Amino acid sequence: MSLHTHVSQWLALDQAGHTLPQGLYVSREAFEFDTQVMLKSVWLFACTVAHVKQPGDYYLFEMAKTSIIIVRGRDGEVRAFHNSCAHRGAKVCTALTGSSPRLTCPYHQWTYGLDGRLLAARNMPDGFDKADHGLRPVALENIGGLLFVCLADEPPTIDRARADIAERVEIYNLDRCKVAVQEDLVETANWKLVMENNRECYHCDANHPELLKSLSTSGFGKGLPGDDMAATQGERFEAYLDAQHAAWKEAGLYTHLVEFPDDSWHRVIRLPLAEGVHSQTLDGKPASRLAISSFPGTEDSSLSVWTQPNSWHHFCHDHAVTFSLTPLAEDRTLLRTSWLVHEDAVEGVDYDPENLAAVWRATNAQDSALATLNHAGIATDGYRPGPYSLEEKLVDAFKTFYVDNARAALALKEASVTP
Amino acid sequence: MSLHTHVSQWLALDQAGHTLPQGLYVSREAFEFDTQVMLKSVWLFACTVAHVKQPGDYYLFEMAKTSIIIVRGRDGEVRAFHNSCAHRGAKVCTALTGSSPRLTCPYHQWTYGLDGRLLAARNMPDGFDKADHGLRPVALENIGGLLFVCLADEPPTIDRARADIAERVEIYNLDRCKVAVQEDLVETANWKLVMENNRECYHCDANHPELLKSLSTSGFGKGLPGDDMAATQGERFEAYLDAQHAAWKEAGLYTHLVEFPDDSWHRVIRLPLAEGVHSQTLDGKPASRLAISSFPGTEDSSLSVWTQPNSWHHFCHDHAVTFSLTPLAEDRTLLRTSWLVHEDAVEGVDYDPENLAAVWRATNAQDSALATLNHAGIATDGYRPGPYSLEEKLVDAFKTFYVDNARAALALKEASVTP
Amino acid sequence: MSLHTHVSQWLALDQAGHTLPQGLYVSREAFEFDTQVMLKSVWLFACTVAHVKQPGDYYLFEMAKTSIIIVRGRDGEVRAFHNSCAHRGAKVCTALTGSSPRLTCPYHQWTYGLDGRLLAARNMPDGFDKADHGLRPVALENIGGLLFVCLADEPPTIDRARADIAERVEIYNLDRCKVAVQEDLVETANWKLVMENNRECYHCDANHPELLKSLSTSGFGKGLPGDDMAATQGERFEAYLDAQHAAWKEAGLYTHLVEFPDDSWHRVIRLPLAEGVHSQTLDGKPASRLAISSFPGTEDSSLSVWTQPNSWHHFCHDHAVTFSLTPLAEDRTLLRTSWLVHEDAVEGVDYDPENLAAVWRATNAQDSALATLNHAGIATDGYRPGPYSLEEKLVDAFKTFYVDNARAALALKEASVTP
Repeated sequence: MSLHTHVSQWLALDQAGHTLPQGLYVSREAFEFDTQVMLKSVWLFACTVAHVKQPGDYYLFEMAKTSIIIVRGRDGEVRAFHNSCAHRGAKVCTALTGSSPRLTCPYHQWTYGLDGRLLAARNMPDGFDKADHGLRPVALENIGGLLFVCLADEPPTIDRARADIAERVEIYNLDRCKVAVQEDLVETANWKLVMENNRECYHCDANHPELLKSLSTSGFGKGLPGDDMAATQGERFEAYLDAQHAAWKEAGLYTHLVEFPDDSWHRVIRLPLAEGVHSQTLDGKPASRLAISSFPGTEDSSLSVWTQPNSWHHFCHDHAVTFSLTPLAEDRTLLRTSWLVHEDAVEGVDYDPENLAAVWRATNAQDSALATLNHAGIATDGYRPGPYSLEEKLVDAFKTFYVDNARAALALKEASVTP
Repeated sequence: MSLHTHVSQWLALDQAGHTLPQGLYVSREAFEFDTQVMLKSVWLFACTVAHVKQPGDYYLFEMAKTSIIIVRGRDGEVRAFHNSCAHRGAKVCTALTGSSPRLTCPYHQWTYGLDGRLLAARNMPDGFDKADHGLRPVALENIGGLLFVCLADEPPTIDRARADIAERVEIYNLDRCKVAVQEDLVETANWKLVMENNRECYHCDANHPELLKSLSTSGFGKGLPGDDMAATQGERFEAYLDAQHAAWKEAGLYTHLVEFPDDSWHRVIRLPLAEGVHSQTLDGKPASRLAISSFPGTEDSSLSVWTQPNSWHHFCHDHAVTFSLTPLAEDRTLLRTSWLVHEDAVEGVDYDPENLAAVWRATNAQDSALATLNHAGIATDGYRPGPYSLEEKLVDAFKTFYVDNARAALALKEASVTP
Repeated sequence: MSLHTHVSQWLALDQAGHTLPQGLYVSREAFEFDTQVMLKSVWLFACTVAHVKQPGDYYLFEMAKTSIIIVRGRDGEVRAFHNSCAHRGAKVCTALTGSSPRLTCPYHQWTYGLDGRLLAARNMPDGFDKADHGLRPVALENIGGLLFVCLADEPPTIDRARADIAERVEIYNLDRCKVAVQEDLVETANWKLVMENNRECYHCDANHPELLKSLSTSGFGKGLPGDDMAATQGERFEAYLDAQHAAWKEAGLYTHLVEFPDDSWHRVIRLPLAEGVHSQTLDGKPASRLAISSFPGTEDSSLSVWTQPNSWHHFCHDHAVTFSLTPLAEDRTLLRTSWLVHEDAVEGVDYDPENLAAVWRATNAQDSALATLNHAGIATDGYRPGPYSLEEKLVDAFKTFYVDNARAALALKEASVTP
């Protein structure tokens, strides 16, 4: 018998081109399923190499019942471990970030190396072998400086994503960046609604004045001002983008759109900024004096990376912004936004943190209010799945990724339980 | 198999003349049953016509997973709709009250008429028909200015209640009233305990000094001062009421007691005020200079309407007070009290809001403290259903209404599920 | 079919010498089982006679769904009753402590004697018999002034514990004490983790500077400074204790260690204080000028009583400290600490409350932080049961007591349910 009977029924009721059945958005059962099954079957964005720059630097990635220490070893490698002492289970690391030559549990001082091996444990009985009591490792991949973890016993292949993302992102040199600003926002909505909100700009015109200043409506695939999506199916926009791409290509920038190839989980696209704009800032000027990009010229575009199921990233010539999303409850989602600048940039001299964060801080707050409304309405008896518009094809792509992976993870789990 | 196995068992254990089994008062399962099944099978009081006076005025009636927009159309009719956009489900109206020529979803600006029809939706695919995507209607009845909604597929008959209530209430002209004061009180008790508390004055002597000033003990069927209920069975009180009724009848006021006829859900009674008292105020004087009643003389009585399962109302010559109750959780109940005066009465000139609300504000707070104690004690292992006193026959009537309708709704639901 | 299927499975997975399976620490199901089954099968420490000194004094012992009135009768006897009115179930007593010649329900003034009998109830129907509607009694035992309650239909035998504890504790004359300070601390951890923390000093060196001042490391069985537990198995410590015991015995103090005999639930031990220390205070001096102990000489030791599953107590020459622990939720535990001094001691003259409470107030706060870490780590996916050290044998004893009694209570419950 399945522990996830209702989830299975709801997944079966999913309709093409429509939002999900209510239970998948608002029930405790779906939250348990998502965090214990579905999200453990895929790669999740955790943080960047800029979050763990030096040996001994660590960062906690936490989601529901998951707490993972991401730590840079003495050999410069970044590794991931479950954050639970092998003695009596206490959390070994308690701060979100820190730095330490060893990992020592605060409770009884069991001490681990940065590679997870148990180094010291007092007064244990005969027969106790330290080699059996290290911190348990978690799969981690470094893709162009973006760090992904996976909790599956057999993580899915990541080669295609690695290749597509790394070669486009590497010109922004994340290993030479530092985290200048980081903010947490707890949204009152299911994590899938926060994702759906991120995957369309159908809501942008009426809700995001700051964002439209830097990106214009073409920034997120809405077509050009004046386009009638229903009539043109975006043809005029495609032609416009083709022209832009030709220019970028000539300048030496990668331009090919990668959009969730072969049911994969990544999308990479270079998008034009609004006319006269050079960075995602309120005034369109760079937020930091020091470039992070190796590109020798001036970029009038930005590179965006979207990954399923929990992140998106924007790379400008002078700074990068990364967004990671983790479910806290069926109606609570943590959005963590990190603004990265060159490691040598000096706060107050080379960049102003308020200016750096202004566009996305405002946009996040606006999106959070919309996601709250969305969740609140879906949670009522009056809700029925509704149809996506032509401007919501990437919402549909996310929903489909969710449903496909949820079904696969559920099938795998039930196969492992059945005798 | 039933989703409500325990509820079914608890209902079977109910004893005549006694409080309910513990689970029906304190369990999450009973809360889910009450709000998803039982309370959807009956008519619920939502608000008054004074809450939606003009075309475009709306009011949200919310209870657990229910959110309903009550809105007055351009034709003057009041209608009710589920508050969830047919696109991606967001709440269309978010404030408790407001006014708008159309109902526009804040997320993607889908726009509905005041009659619920979808008027505008951008960039939808071929084959999309606006006629299929209006707001979903909910049954609504206007009874003498009191608005009731019902979420059942086939709402129960309401004719008898309409006749009994409307003809008695209409002299108070609610369509010429406005809401002068409105207050929300979240009680830490199950909604059925808040109702039980409302249905007896066995607790009044020791707990409600303000209320007793205006109503005296006879106000809620306790009998006259000095009566021994156990000995006289209220005979002396009946004789007293008969004399009062004769006087009111001669003056032209309806006087006949209507008390939950034929297992119906309403009780209407004219009750004497204390000697020298003309309104439910601390000093016994009218709270507003402008009368709402069409009755030409001076009333030394008030009209009270109690409905199962969630409201009560008191009508004085100069003002009316309505109480609506909605469950928020198994141990949280929202009591919303609205004080209505004549629409032309000017605050600070014709009435003082503090004076208007004083008696019932104090009484509500006292009752809330008692309901908290009641719930807390019932939630303990020590609780066993106990016997109602002779002064609690209307508590028993409420409990019986609850049990009868819960059983019927459960039977209906299970019949619809069984193949 | 069991209501506690998972608990049963988790209990079966328990490993000797290791912490419990995750579910027993963090799940709602285990919390329900613990508070509704396991903890109702054993004796629980509630408070002391000093909490109910005079006839009419009462004290509420509350845990999850349990609320018990502990009240001293006119005859001087202390009794316990369920705190739920026999009328409509309201709590009769609402304050933690109070004093009253009778117990009157605030809702409808039903009135009970201090012996639980119903004395008054107005306007009840014919056939109502007050004798059938008293407060329901709960088993209570007074052991040397420590009050224990048990909610089992047939409480387990208590004779051995009574004998062992009473004869050692009685020299501290709790019936001549008063509560000088009482503090509640809500720990963010499962109650069993708060207990485990209490049963070892493996964590003391790095975490409890104040406590070590008065107790030294030998205070809680850690051995002497310099001891290597793994090598000596505590032999040197045993010899040291033997010498101390000889001295105490000669002085006339009970010295024999009683350590959970025959799977019983109590441990009594006299332990040396640090050199030059005479009380568990920051400066080692008595906290109160008036002795509570009848022992004529000066004690350079303290008597400690630990009981399974929810209390511990320390008795010094001048004061006593008692700790009671009650689960509030799977991850919330109430620790209530009471400091007792001689009833004639005058605050500000004979004792300073801040000084009296300083050592254990600081130690409680430190332990609470550790229990929080412990629970948080166990609640993650990374947790696996880990091995106890040689210094954690009393943790293992608590865990074993828990598992044994949980299994027995579960078997008894299922036997009573099965037809």
